[in-house]
Amino acid sequence: MKVTKFGGSSLASGAQLKKVLDIVVADPQRKVVVVSAPGKRYADDIKVTDLLIECANQHLQSGEAPELENAIVSRYGSIAKELDLPETITEQIRRDLLKLLQGDKSSPERYMDAVKASGEDNNAKLVAAYFQSEGLDAVYVNPQDAGLFVSDEAGYVKILPESYDNLYKLRDEPAIVVFPGFFGYNKAGEIVTFSRSGSDITGSILANGTKAELYENFTDVDAVYSVNPNVVKNPKEVRELTYREMRELSYAGFSVFHDEALIPAFRAGIPVNIKNTNNPSAEGTKIVNNRDNTNGPVIGIASDNGFCSIYVSKYLMNREIGFGRRLLHILEENGLSYEHIPSGIDDISIILRQDQFGQDLEDKIVSRIYEELQADEVKVQHDLSLIMIVGEGMRQNVGTTARASKALAGAKVNIEMINQGSSEVSMMFGVKNKDEGKAVRALYEEFFASVPISR
Amino acid sequence: MKVTKFGGSSLASGAQLKKVLDIVVADPQRKVVVVSAPGKRYADDIKVTDLLIECANQHLQSGEAPELENAIVSRYGSIAKELDLPETITEQIRRDLLKLLQGDKSSPERYMDAVKASGEDNNAKLVAAYFQSEGLDAVYVNPQDAGLFVSDEAGYVKILPESYDNLYKLRDEPAIVVFPGFFGYNKAGEIVTFSRSGSDITGSILANGTKAELYENFTDVDAVYSVNPNVVKNPKEVRELTYREMRELSYAGFSVFHDEALIPAFRAGIPVNIKNTNNPSAEGTKIVNNRDNTNGPVIGIASDNGFCSIYVSKYLMNREIGFGRRLLHILEENGLSYEHIPSGIDDISIILRQDQFGQDLEDKIVSRIYEELQADEVKVQHDLSLIMIVGEGMRQNVGTTARASKALAGAKVNIEMINQGSSEVSMMFGVKNKDEGKAVRALYEEFFASVPISR
Repeated sequence: MKVTKFGGSSLASGAQLKKVLDIVVADPQRKVVVVSAPGKRYADDIKVTDLLIECANQHLQSGEAPELENAIVSRYGSIAKELDLPETITEQIRRDLLKLLQGDKSSPERYMDAVKASGEDNNAKLVAAYFQSEGLDAVYVNPQDAGLFVSDEAGYVKILPESYDNLYKLRDEPAIVVFPGFFGYNKAGEIVTFSRSGSDITGSILANGTKAELYENFTDVDAVYSVNPNVVKNPKEVRELTYREMRELSYAGFSVFHDEALIPAFRAGIPVNIKNTNNPSAEGTKIVNNRDNTNGPVIGIASDNGFCSIYVSKYLMNREIGFGRRLLHILEENGLSYEHIPSGIDDISIILRQDQFGQDLEDKIVSRIYEELQADEVKVQHDLSLIMIVGEGMRQNVGTTARASKALAGAKVNIEMINQGSSEVSMMFGVKNKDEGKAVRALYEEFFASVPISR
Repeated sequence: MKVTKFGGSSLASGAQLKKVLDIVVADPQRKVVVVSAPGKRYADDIKVTDLLIECANQHLQSGEAPELENAIVSRYGSIAKELDLPETITEQIRRDLLKLLQGDKSSPERYMDAVKASGEDNNAKLVAAYFQSEGLDAVYVNPQDAGLFVSDEAGYVKILPESYDNLYKLRDEPAIVVFPGFFGYNKAGEIVTFSRSGSDITGSILANGTKAELYENFTDVDAVYSVNPNVVKNPKEVRELTYREMRELSYAGFSVFHDEALIPAFRAGIPVNIKNTNNPSAEGTKIVNNRDNTNGPVIGIASDNGFCSIYVSKYLMNREIGFGRRLLHILEENGLSYEHIPSGIDDISIILRQDQFGQDLEDKIVSRIYEELQADEVKVQHDLSLIMIVGEGMRQNVGTTARASKALAGAKVNIEMINQGSSEVSMMFGVKNKDEGKAVRALYEEFFASVPISR
């Protein structure tokens, strides 16, 4: 069996839902369908989830938001009308939504979560009704009834292990299960949403729980690209990549998947297939445990900006046991997480995301480093980009560094930092923000576009 | 004025001492002469310092060592004879040495220091006597009388700041000062030796204290080489390098200078000139604060082996504030110092010298990392070499990385690690021990020997 998840743009209109139905019907293995809330129909459209957030905020402030309520309900209404579904379905959604909006506001966080989750929940009901109206044996299943339980200590949502055993029972359901993404329930019976793009996580959890043979993730692109199409025109599609490659790429701004979404499927060793609702016959991209190395050493290039480095130098630092640990401790006490720690003999740099702190905190940290560590010099450099080249084929490939750094030199990009040596499947270059696009294009040219020549 | 230090091989025989005299006489600015103990006269010769250590050990064990005593005294005796000095000088050295060897052994450490230091001390007396016999106005000065005081807490010798003020008074001495290297006195009046090659440190301290315009360091090579001559035949000489370049090079096995020897001169901004006693007209190598960049980006290549890496991976490590700090803490609690910390997204490696720990401690540390940090995987890789390319010209030189990594790829050397980004004047490559020589030769070819071609 397969778990099949559809994203917001695949569910934005009646026309899209017809494609979804065709996809589900086309393969009898598609037994569990996970749905997002209705997404954008066109570039300037607003996602239902965003309408719900605004609506909940207005209710928390003023106790009403009639225009937003209408906007939300009419999104479902227009889909239902397009599909010739009875009006009672839309009316039920309106009643449920209004009741929810008037509900308990004693915990604004729980209230917000419940309102947000209704986007997916109502859509799952709508999709199930549509499937049934087309003669399919389909059933809406609520996460609480299915036993999808989470804890939400310290702002970090965690799936309770028993959930996986509970979800395995979905296999006994003869009908096609339509399941809302994005949320679970805590043990107090309250709704807890996952982070954004959380429907991907739900699909991943269900794939793990039901021990599916495949987790299909339908979105609106034919495949994962080897590089951001906003930076390089018509980049190559990636047919297959490993979990590890995906994780390293998504770290640095690769936007296909939410970072954590893959973990449950990964832990169960279930392959993921990213496919296009609008072009279901395209092969898509598969994320797997192991792959054949047919693409050369590099499978993808990702980049992200907004980093800074704190440079600390002290003569004979190298001899001082505990220096690095004490430096990291100062950052930790200020709640800062860091990304990388390149070091010289008597100097060390900490690379971290600069949106974590403003000028005040920066000044405070710099003076603590001077005072507590008796540093000779402390300098902060802003506006760095990290570029990551990723590929399992890099493990033993002599010369990948040479090709990458030569490409950057050819593009007149100065390498501010290289981090290579821990991960076997990636290599990271730090460059100035202004050089990011130029650097990514040069690396793409080198590893994907250039005609192979002897080197 | 100049402080001029002569190393052991420059003082190993009467013939050598004649060269030393010529050098001192040739420049009236050479006012303070620092001397080592007599060194090797030929490859298999034994240094006086080594004879003294063995002699002290035998005295500590059995209370006598007549053969070694004779061997030591006869080294001074043969020099004195070669220089036609009166026998009374050698006899005085014998009496002083025997008295010292029969002296207080209640602290074996202090006893050993005093015996070792006699090598330099007696040599300074001999050199001063020789200078006088040649009609030079020269005087032996004892470090205690000159006020060279140190503390020796926790095995780490530190110059007391007042020493520098005391030593400034040497400028008032009209005669040429002959000063023994390698030791100072603690406040209890006991002799404390510096680490090996400690005469370089003495010269550096005296240069600082007397505010000399130059610290000359006479040894037995015409210049510092750009790379180890045992690895590359007839390598290029370096005319000028900065303190920072010297420090980075000496870290990774560049043997010209003891690591710490330069600090006092560096702090006072005094340039150092390394010259050859056997060829004093050669320009030598100057160590300076700033230099003109005329050699291309790289000034030297150094390497050292015997490193290992501890690789730690944990899914979502990147999110865990404090992970790196806790990892470093485990090493610190076991007294281990580390060199570098390359990191990926969910993994981190620690590079450290492997002679710091045996299998037992390694096993203990690996299991602590598994248990306390809940790591997914911990792996130790042994027998790594670190190769450092150094040069102030690398600061803004686009393409140095490309040239270096291309050279390594061309030599079929796999780069296990790159550390670049903190120090602006160096770049470090980790390779397997077996590839070290091959890698150094390839880098030398690239940066020093190759005919410039357009790249």
